Amino acid sequence: MEANQNAFEPRSATLLLHCDLRAGVAGDLTRFIQVNGGRIVYHDQYVDTEINHYYTRLEWDPAGFVVGDAALADRIRPLIGDGPDTEYSLHFSDRIKRMAVFVSKDPWCLYDILARSQSGEWRVDIPVIVGNHPDLKSVADKFGIEFRLLPVTSANKGEVEDAQLALLAKHSVDFIVLAKYMQIVSERFVRAYPNRIINIHHAFLPAFPGARPYHSARARGVKIIGATSHYVTEELDAGPIIEQDVLRVSHRHSVQELVRSGRDLEKIVLSRAIWRHLQHKIIVHRGRTIVFH
Amino acid sequence: MEANQNAFEPRSATLLLHCDLRAGVAGDLTRFIQVNGGRIVYHDQYVDTEINHYYTRLEWDPAGFVVGDAALADRIRPLIGDGPDTEYSLHFSDRIKRMAVFVSKDPWCLYDILARSQSGEWRVDIPVIVGNHPDLKSVADKFGIEFRLLPVTSANKGEVEDAQLALLAKHSVDFIVLAKYMQIVSERFVRAYPNRIINIHHAFLPAFPGARPYHSARARGVKIIGATSHYVTEELDAGPIIEQDVLRVSHRHSVQELVRSGRDLEKIVLSRAIWRHLQHKIIVHRGRTIVFH
Amino acid sequence: MEANQNAFEPRSATLLLHCDLRAGVAGDLTRFIQVNGGRIVYHDQYVDTEINHYYTRLEWDPAGFVVGDAALADRIRPLIGDGPDTEYSLHFSDRIKRMAVFVSKDPWCLYDILARSQSGEWRVDIPVIVGNHPDLKSVADKFGIEFRLLPVTSANKGEVEDAQLALLAKHSVDFIVLAKYMQIVSERFVRAYPNRIINIHHAFLPAFPGARPYHSARARGVKIIGATSHYVTEELDAGPIIEQDVLRVSHRHSVQELVRSGRDLEKIVLSRAIWRHLQHKIIVHRGRTIVFH
Amino acid sequence: MEANQNAFEPRSATLLLHCDLRAGVAGDLTRFIQVNGGRIVYHDQYVDTEINHYYTRLEWDPAGFVVGDAALADRIRPLIGDGPDTEYSLHFSDRIKRMAVFVSKDPWCLYDILARSQSGEWRVDIPVIVGNHPDLKSVADKFGIEFRLLPVTSANKGEVEDAQLALLAKHSVDFIVLAKYMQIVSERFVRAYPNRIINIHHAFLPAFPGARPYHSARARGVKIIGATSHYVTEELDAGPIIEQDVLRVSHRHSVQELVRSGRDLEKIVLSRAIWRHLQHKIIVHRGRTIVFH
Repeated sequence: MEANQNAFEPRSATLLLHCDLRAGVAGDLTRFIQVNGGRIVYHDQYVDTEINHYYTRLEWDPAGFVVGDAALADRIRPLIGDGPDTEYSLHFSDRIKRMAVFVSKDPWCLYDILARSQSGEWRVDIPVIVGNHPDLKSVADKFGIEFRLLPVTSANKGEVEDAQLALLAKHSVDFIVLAKYMQIVSERFVRAYPNRIINIHHAFLPAFPGARPYHSARARGVKIIGATSHYVTEELDAGPIIEQDVLRVSHRHSVQELVRSGRDLEKIVLSRAIWRHLQHKIIVHRGRTIVFH
Repeated sequence: MEANQNAFEPRSATLLLHCDLRAGVAGDLTRFIQVNGGRIVYHDQYVDTEINHYYTRLEWDPAGFVVGDAALADRIRPLIGDGPDTEYSLHFSDRIKRMAVFVSKDPWCLYDILARSQSGEWRVDIPVIVGNHPDLKSVADKFGIEFRLLPVTSANKGEVEDAQLALLAKHSVDFIVLAKYMQIVSERFVRAYPNRIINIHHAFLPAFPGARPYHSARARGVKIIGATSHYVTEELDAGPIIEQDVLRVSHRHSVQELVRSGRDLEKIVLSRAIWRHLQHKIIVHRGRTIVFH
Repeated sequence: MEANQNAFEPRSATLLLHCDLRAGVAGDLTRFIQVNGGRIVYHDQYVDTEINHYYTRLEWDPAGFVVGDAALADRIRPLIGDGPDTEYSLHFSDRIKRMAVFVSKDPWCLYDILARSQSGEWRVDIPVIVGNHPDLKSVADKFGIEFRLLPVTSANKGEVEDAQLALLAKHSVDFIVLAKYMQIVSERFVRAYPNRIINIHHAFLPAFPGARPYHSARARGVKIIGATSHYVTEELDAGPIIEQDVLRVSHRHSVQELVRSGRDLEKIVLSRAIWRHLQHKIIVHRGRTIVFH
Repeated sequence: MEANQNAFEPRSATLLLHCDLRAGVAGDLTRFIQVNGGRIVYHDQYVDTEINHYYTRLEWDPAGFVVGDAALADRIRPLIGDGPDTEYSLHFSDRIKRMAVFVSKDPWCLYDILARSQSGEWRVDIPVIVGNHPDLKSVADKFGIEFRLLPVTSANKGEVEDAQLALLAKHSVDFIVLAKYMQIVSERFVRAYPNRIINIHHAFLPAFPGARPYHSARARGVKIIGATSHYVTEELDAGPIIEQDVLRVSHRHSVQELVRSGRDLEKIVLSRAIWRHLQHKIIVHRGRTIVFH
C-alpha cells in the first residue's frame, strides 16, 4: 500500500443523529461536547419542517475530551430524548471500516475502488472480494486482495448466501459494495446488513429499473442517461438513493456507446456514495437519505 | 413588435428527410442542389446502422436555384426511392410558421415564449393563445395577442375540442405548444396534429410521468430533477422526446422549492424544443427523435 | 400586476451576519429569538475554519416576537461582539425592495426580470428602467414601467451619472441590476451602492473578462461556455461572484451560435443571483460571497 | 492482461483529413472507398463556413478493399488537392498505438489509465511509465509495466530530456500522456511530438493557468471548477483544448476539498481526451481541435 495514510487528520469522533425536533437540541449537543473538552471540527444539521424532524452530524477532536468512548452513548441519550423515531450512531476515525466488494464480470467499478483505497484516497480495509464469476480474480491479485469465487445458480442460491454470510462474518465486514454484481440479493441477506449494502444501478432511477437499462434508454430515445447509487432494500432498485449523476446523449449513441459512456458515470457515482458512507455523512430515514456535505 | 426581423438570413430552403439507406444517396442529393444552382449552407446526416436507415437535413440558398418550389418534390422523389419507410418535407424560410399556445394558470413558459417571439429571437407568428382558465389573459394582453378562454370540464370536453380545432383551423395554425396546459388532449386532437403538438412535462421522463412529479421526486428522494419536452402522442407522456435537462437537488429541497427550481428548467427545455422545431431540425421516426444541431 | 402576491408567506424577519467565531454564538442568537417569542423558520450557518470566521442567516416569524424592529439591532449587538470584522443587516419581508434595471439593447434579461416580477415569482418593486439606448422602451411600456433614456457618450458620462444617481435617489432604489448594460460604471457610482449593483457577464469568469467573450471563447476553442453574475466593484469584472453556470459547446458552434446559446445562460444566471439577493441570502466578505440555500 | 481484446471490431482503416473546401470532395472520397470495395462504417464531416475549410473522418472495413495500404496515400491525394492548408493521416486498427505515461506523485490519473488499458476498454500498448519521483513505481509494478525514474532538477533538465527522448525512441512511442507530470516540457521536446503530447490541467482554461489553480479558484470565489485536457504546445497551458468538464462548488469547499473533488474531474477528462486520440477522432487546426463523436 502506498503510504499517505498519514495525510489523514488526527483521531476524530462523529455523532450521526436524527430525532424529533426539540427546541435547543442543537445547542445542548454542541455545549455538551465543548464543555467536556471536545473541539468541534464539523457541524451540519437539517430540519425537515414538514415532519418537524431534526438531523445532524457533529464531528469533534477528542484529544482533550473527558468523556470516554464507552460512556459517550449514555451521556448523549438524555440530550436527544427517547422518541420512537430517534436513531444515532457514534464513529471513531481510528476504527477503520471493513468493506467487502461483490463483483461479476465488469471491472471498472472494482478498479476505481481499489485504486482509491490503495492510494490512500480512502481510509478503508478491503479484506475480501467476492465474485460469482472468475473473471476479476486477476484484478484482485494485482492489488493483493483475497478473491473468493462463489458462483451462483438458481439451484444453489441459498447455499451460496450462507457461504457469503459466513465469509463476511469471518472478516468482520462492516458494509458491502455491490460493484456491478449482477445478482439480486435475498431479503435475508439485506436484513443482515440494513443500510449497509451499497449498489450501483446503471440508470437514472426511478427511470429504467431492472435489467438492460441502456437498451431501454435507447428505445425510449432519452436525451440524458444517468447512474444511481443506493442502499439495497428488499424491493429491487427501490432503496434510498445516495447519489446520482447524468450525461447528455443523442440519437447518435448506439446501445454500445451508451454502455461505454455509462461506465464512467457508474464508477464515479458509486465511489462518491462509498466516500460519503465512509465519512459517516449519510442518514437514512423514511426511505430517503440525508447526505451531509 | 420589436423590429430585428431583418437580423434573419436571406430566404432559405430546407429538406428534412429519412429513408432506407442507399449507397450514394447523400451525394445524389447534394449534387442535385448544386447542379441546379443552390448554394448549400447546412448539411447534416445520420445513419442508424442497426436498421440501415438514413436521416438528413439539407438547407440551401435558393437565390440562383433553377427548380421552382412547386416542382421540387417531384425532382427529389426519384433520388430517394419510394420505400415504405420514406418521409420528407420541404420548408421555405419566408413561409413563417403559425403557432398556437395553450395555457392554464402557470405563466413562466408563456412569458418565455412571448418574449422570444416578440424580441425577434424566434421567427414565428402567434395568432392566438388558448386558456382553460382566465388567469393568463393579462399576459396575452400585454403582448397584444388574442386570448381565447375555453374552460374545460369533464362534461364539455368534446365540445371544447371542437371549438379548439375550429379556432386552430381558422387561424391556419401549423403547430401547437402546450405551455403548462394541464389537460390531457384526446386521440382525435392528437391525430389532427401528428408530431405537431409540443408538450413540456415537469420531470425527467420516463421517471415520474403523470400528475405531481415534484411530489413523487421528493418522496423518492432523487438527487436530480428534470424536465422533458416531447411531441404529444395518444399515450400520456410517452411521445418522442425532443429535449431534456436536469438540475441537482438535495434533501433540503421541499416540494415547494423543487417546484420553484423546476420552473426555469421547464421554460428553457420547452423553448429549446420549440426552437429546434422552428428550424426544422427534428425528424420523428419509430417513436424517437433525430435532432440535428 | 397578476395577483398571487398572497402566495408569499406571512411577515418574516431576517438577520444576515458575519463575525469572528466565538464559541456559543449560534446558540446565543437562536435562544435570543426563541426566548423573545420568535419562531425560527430558517437557520443556516457556515464557519470558515481557515480564518475562524462565522457566517449565518436566521429568519423567524415575528408574530409573537416581543422585541420591536427598532430595538432589535441594539439587542443583537452584544451577542455578536464588536470585532473589527463584524457586519450584520436586518430585513423585514413587508419592506419590499426597490430595484432599478439598467439596459442597453439586448432584451432577454430584461424580459426575464419583468416576467418574474410581474407574475409574482419575485416580490420586488421596479420603479424605473434606465436605458442608454431607446431600443427597449417598448418592453418597458408593455409592462407599464417608466423607461428613462439617458444616452451615454464619452463626453457626457459624468453628467449622465449625476442624472442616474438623482433618479435612483428620487425612486428610493435599494439595488441596481445591470441587465446587459454595456457601459462601465464609475468608481463614484459603485461606491454609492456597495454590493448592491448586480451585473451579468457573458463568460465563465475569470476566463474572458472584458468585451467580446464569445469571440474569445471561439478563438480559444473552449468546449464549455459560461455566464457569471457578480456584484460590481471598482475593478472591471472582478467583483464577488454570486452565481455561474455553463453549457457544453463544440467546434460546430460559430460565434453567432455561441451568442444565441449564451442568452439563456445569461438570463437564468442573472435571475438566480437577483433571487438570492432578494432573499437576503448573500454575504460578501473579503471579495467572495457566501450564498445560503 | 485481461483478455477481452477480441471485443474489438475487425480491422478498420481510418482517414482523418482537413483541406480547403471544394464542391464534391465528400462525394469523391466516399465513392473512391466504395468503388474499391471498402464498406464505410463511419463518416462524419464539418465545414467551417467562416474560413471555407473542410474536415472529415472516414472509417471503413477494408476486408474487400482492393487498394493496398501502401498505395492508399497516392490514390487519395488527387482527390483532396494540394492546397497549402491540407493535412491528412491514415490509420489501421491492427497497428496498435504505443503510449508513454509521464507522472510525478499524484496517482489518480495513472490508475485510471492503467485500469482502462489492462481491462481492454482501450486498445493501446504502454511500454513505459516515466516518473520524476519514485512514488508511483509501486503502481507501475502492480500492472507489470516498466517504470523509469528520471528525476528532474533545474541543473539536469536538458540531460533528462535527452534520456527521455532516447527512451521514447527506443520504445517506438507514438504519443505521450502527461498524467499529472508536474514539470514544464521544453520547446525541443514539444517539437519532437507535435500534437502528440496530451496534458491535463486542473482548471477550466483559460481561467487559472499555471500553478495552484485550486488555490486561485478558492481565492476568486468561483462557483464552478473545471479541468481541461489539451495538446501541449510551446506556450504553457495554451495548447488546443481537447476536452473540458466542470463541477459545481460553493463557499463551503476549502482548497483541500476542491483538490479532492477535482481529482475525479481530472482523471475522467484526461481519459476522455486519450480515448478520442486513440480513435483518431481529433483534428488540430489553427490552434483549435475538431473532435468528432
